[in-house]
Amino acid sequence: MTDPPRTQTGSEPDEDIMLATYDALCKHGYADLTIQRIADEYGKSTAAVHYHYDTKSDLLAAFVDYLLDQFVDQVHDVETTDPEERLNLLLDKLLISAVDHQNLLIALFEMQGQAPYQETFADRFSQSDEYIRYLLETVIVHGKEQGVFNDVDSENVARSLVTIAEGGRTRAVTLDDQQQLAEARQTADDYIDAVLLSSE
Amino acid sequence: MTDPPRTQTGSEPDEDIMLATYDALCKHGYADLTIQRIADEYGKSTAAVHYHYDTKSDLLAAFVDYLLDQFVDQVHDVETTDPEERLNLLLDKLLISAVDHQNLLIALFEMQGQAPYQETFADRFSQSDEYIRYLLETVIVHGKEQGVFNDVDSENVARSLVTIAEGGRTRAVTLDDQQQLAEARQTADDYIDAVLLSSE
Repeated sequence: MTDPPRTQTGSEPDEDIMLATYDALCKHGYADLTIQRIADEYGKSTAAVHYHYDTKSDLLAAFVDYLLDQFVDQVHDVETTDPEERLNLLLDKLLISAVDHQNLLIALFEMQGQAPYQETFADRFSQSDEYIRYLLETVIVHGKEQGVFNDVDSENVARSLVTIAEGGRTRAVTLDDQQQLAEARQTADDYIDAVLLSSE
Repeated sequence: MTDPPRTQTGSEPDEDIMLATYDALCKHGYADLTIQRIADEYGKSTAAVHYHYDTKSDLLAAFVDYLLDQFVDQVHDVETTDPEERLNLLLDKLLISAVDHQNLLIALFEMQGQAPYQETFADRFSQSDEYIRYLLETVIVHGKEQGVFNDVDSENVARSLVTIAEGGRTRAVTLDDQQQLAEARQTADDYIDAVLLSSE
């Protein structure tokens, strides 16, 4: 994978509706989310929400894009170019930033469970996964070029790190235990130490 | 963790109803599962199903137990006592055995997403997680005693392997890509090579 994944085209999402969706999801959960409840948080009518998004499914797909955009913005703000430090910061964003956002984690997990039935969700989660792998892989390639990481298969290592992060988020939801995010972060560290940094 | 988790007490689940539930879940998915659809697969009335299980939730909790029991039975049938071989077989059971059972993986994922709302599911998934970690940890301790594994923190390594397996299953569902099970199996192998088997 050498090219960055294409970014979503289309109208800019309305930040206020996204924040209202965030609040409504955290309060009511995915299954009980309605346009009315989003409109309540938005402080406007359901018609005002529907003006921007035809269906709840469209709105939630835009919400997944919004979360990815936020993640990307935060990553762009990281100024260090040191590969090990950048890799650690990316993994912190994927795992440690989710601490204290258990309700959002649960809602996203439920939406992931709908991916097999809703193509719009499936597309968004695939795109999000691809972009995060791309960010990780870029840092690993850079670290190899600088001679600070071992000569590994960057694509495999990036996917493995995403797998560990997904496993930690899944366990945090299923076991109702936020500590699993920190545990998975430790697993990622152990993996990096052993695979990327060990003297071969 | 030194003692095996307590096993579920109560009446023996009716194997035929469990098989009917399996078929109904794979055909209709979790959201569209009804007692009627389970009864259809069972070849009897809904009353016959309700005779054994008061609610759909009770039945599905018993189904999670049933899957764990099947896993435990398969593990008991493994005759090798070689730690590395046993560890590989356990990970094969967790990941490779799920290949070609995508509909079951999806249904289980949806049930995991209900764990925050349904205590019976949460209890079952916690118990299942604990038991699988116990099996892995036992093999790792055994391997350390035999001097074939490095002197690692067995509990941490067992949890890391479960995290990798969960991540692989999550990605197989979310990305609709069974290949992710084999990829996660490879991540587990890389982790074992680097953490348990590398010369320190």
